[in-house]
Amino acid sequence: MSFVPTEGSDFPLANIPFGVVSTAADPAPRPASAIGAFAVDLRELAAAGLFSGPLLAAHARRVFAQPTLNEFMALGRPAWREARATLQRLLAADGDPALRDNHDLRARVLVPLADVRFHLPAAIGDYTDFYASREHATNVGTMFRGRDNALMPNWLHLPVGYHGRASSVVISGTPIRRPSGLILNPATKAPEFSASRKMDFELEVAFFVGVGNKLGDRISISEADDHIFGMVLMNDWSARDIQQFEYVPLGPFLGKNFGTTISPWIVTLDALEDARVAQPTPDFEPAEYLRDAAGSKNAFDIDLEVLLKPRGHSTPSVISRSNLKYMYWSFKQQLAHHTINGCNMGTGDLCGSGTISGPAEDSLGSMLELTHNGTRPLALPGGVARAFIEDGDEIVLRGAARVADGATGGRVRLGFGDAAGVLLPAALGSVRPVA
Amino acid sequence: MSFVPTEGSDFPLANIPFGVVSTAADPAPRPASAIGAFAVDLRELAAAGLFSGPLLAAHARRVFAQPTLNEFMALGRPAWREARATLQRLLAADGDPALRDNHDLRARVLVPLADVRFHLPAAIGDYTDFYASREHATNVGTMFRGRDNALMPNWLHLPVGYHGRASSVVISGTPIRRPSGLILNPATKAPEFSASRKMDFELEVAFFVGVGNKLGDRISISEADDHIFGMVLMNDWSARDIQQFEYVPLGPFLGKNFGTTISPWIVTLDALEDARVAQPTPDFEPAEYLRDAAGSKNAFDIDLEVLLKPRGHSTPSVISRSNLKYMYWSFKQQLAHHTINGCNMGTGDLCGSGTISGPAEDSLGSMLELTHNGTRPLALPGGVARAFIEDGDEIVLRGAARVADGATGGRVRLGFGDAAGVLLPAALGSVRPVA
Ligand SMILES: [Ca+2]
Ligand SMILES: [Ca+2]
Ligand SMILES: [Mg+2]
Ligand SMILES: [Mg+2]
Ligand code: NI
Repeated sequence: MSFVPTEGSDFPLANIPFGVVSTAADPAPRPASAIGAFAVDLRELAAAGLFSGPLLAAHARRVFAQPTLNEFMALGRPAWREARATLQRLLAADGDPALRDNHDLRARVLVPLADVRFHLPAAIGDYTDFYASREHATNVGTMFRGRDNALMPNWLHLPVGYHGRASSVVISGTPIRRPSGLILNPATKAPEFSASRKMDFELEVAFFVGVGNKLGDRISISEADDHIFGMVLMNDWSARDIQQFEYVPLGPFLGKNFGTTISPWIVTLDALEDARVAQPTPDFEPAEYLRDAAGSKNAFDIDLEVLLKPRGHSTPSVISRSNLKYMYWSFKQQLAHHTINGCNMGTGDLCGSGTISGPAEDSLGSMLELTHNGTRPLALPGGVARAFIEDGDEIVLRGAARVADGATGGRVRLGFGDAAGVLLPAALGSVRPVA
Repeated sequence: MSFVPTEGSDFPLANIPFGVVSTAADPAPRPASAIGAFAVDLRELAAAGLFSGPLLAAHARRVFAQPTLNEFMALGRPAWREARATLQRLLAADGDPALRDNHDLRARVLVPLADVRFHLPAAIGDYTDFYASREHATNVGTMFRGRDNALMPNWLHLPVGYHGRASSVVISGTPIRRPSGLILNPATKAPEFSASRKMDFELEVAFFVGVGNKLGDRISISEADDHIFGMVLMNDWSARDIQQFEYVPLGPFLGKNFGTTISPWIVTLDALEDARVAQPTPDFEPAEYLRDAAGSKNAFDIDLEVLLKPRGHSTPSVISRSNLKYMYWSFKQQLAHHTINGCNMGTGDLCGSGTISGPAEDSLGSMLELTHNGTRPLALPGGVARAFIEDGDEIVLRGAARVADGATGGRVRLGFGDAAGVLLPAALGSVRPVA
């Protein structure tokens, strides 16, 4: 238990997530953690000499004075563990009094979350998006190619993924502008320039690479966990009509790269240890490089939900409830696959899970699936209906793992903070009604 | 004419390319240009105060002391022009004597190219590869999908492109390791783990973005040239068998991201002004955002050649001769397309043209096309035959524009330096003969 109240928050002592914040008083972005309703300023804590462990003592002042977490991430998992343990000790009600009993330091280190501005937690060198939910791949494949060709022949053999655009990954709270582009007019079958008429979200979880590999080397599945720093929630905003015209044969491009929203807090694998569960049983054993130790738990039981707050309304509605455990291919498999050819991963690289759809009608991770490509609009409170996302709507992703709480013997909720964004009207082209 | 001999070199006074070099005596990577057989150390020239023009005087010491060109690029086209004009003045036989007549400074600034090591010229934030040669798209489409479905319905409407992997872009001279992965066994039709059996190159030219745009904004076609810093040669190494199994529906991934080689020197658009020619006549007018001013010359007449030096041989053979002018979609169109949805480009981003195949049998830009997917091996001197690239083979790309030479009234050749790489044996899996 912490001396900071944490009940009902995403940030109990068992969490200790990492992010980057600034304040009005000090606009320099700097590393932080969170406890209850407070950000924990790691730069201040390091300046006070409180990261005194063997791995961090010589590095903490430097890595926690950076505008991103990259230098901290590059230190490796033992250092991440030492940082988390140090913070748990300093924030515990019955722990090290160095912070707890120093009221001046507490005032500098503990900043109300309401007063902080969030920044991207890492400089993202490359961003990859996978496609690892069987339910999502089947649903989308059925819509675009019919039931018999829904899952491509490769899908059960390897975690299909593609390169996304790192530059347009943005932190929660950043508005997203509706993109314009060439779209097939369904009546004339000719492409025309228009603002997207099919704006969608994709409910995803993404992992940050903490330590990478050299070009030509690989990260084996047994090593993968030590290379993964932690996870964020991710909304892979998608313009379905732009995507559909452009994506054959080289994959999604302008239908995706106008914006991708991540949650402010990275939750570490160590915090999520107790949320590990077995992943779905595969149809058949994959290739050896994708095979994990028998009995290993490589999925994560993390409840996910998507909320839509319609333009002009003050209350968001939950439109989907899913869970990360539905993912067919694990993050470890994704990282082993990504590097099996010698591709080099770097500190700060981001890898998305792909849309996490569950088996139920209300567990689908995109409007495309929830509304059957817009044909069955969602009915929301107040007589609001949505086939796709409209200008001014806000999409909010939330996630929660429930892990053992040492203090009470019960379970406590760990979260990521909201991954939220409002859709702005298009700058170019109008959203014309379909002819 | 320069006081440095330039005849027969890629680097006459009309070129003034930009790159990053180091030397054994000073291993710090630093910006450079080239003249004749010499690199021009821009850090030394800036330290001597010789960038005295209005735009660079206050910035040259800083931007030319960086390990990449990014800070110089970010200054914008007027500064790039001022730098080039300053260098032309300082290197001219009859120009400013400040360098020419200072023998000590000349010894520090002019470093024999044989003594320099090349580095990536820029920190590449994101890398995109287009698919802009109609001949290549048609050839590959015919092989994979038959003649009737060769060009996809979108191809003539927009410059198809996809995101590549920035981390594995390497400078000329870096060896490339043959990748391994899941490949369809043509006999059993089942995927099996193997080193790639179909190693290929792709002959491309790529542009570096000098000045980008904010997320949500765009770069219009009329503004595009001012955002492009210059061009390099690029070999998009490709493992055709890995690519073919993985690429549907999200595009190429592990079949491409194990290595991409670029030439050491970036040649600016200003140097290539005189190489501009009209691009191929389109089948029909594209959408307005892709339409350029009437009569504008947006293709570049740059002769390209591919050489293969077989393992154990000392002489490379030319296996293809193509030209950048064959590209259907211009770099300006690519940049306007990439940002029409608000995608943000950054300083140092790299955009490849796609494989540049010409209309003739010997102007094809990949082994896939030259050998008809390996079925008609190339016969090279000394009884050597190649269906695809073999371990120990070196692939070398060369390019040359011929522009007016003020001094002689004739034409002078501008080049990029070789984009070269040797293929190393696979680390994992053997290259098994097809069953
Ligand atoms: Ca996605
Ligand atoms: Ca290519
Ligand atoms: Mg996106
Ligand atoms: Mg490549
Ligand atoms: Ni002298």
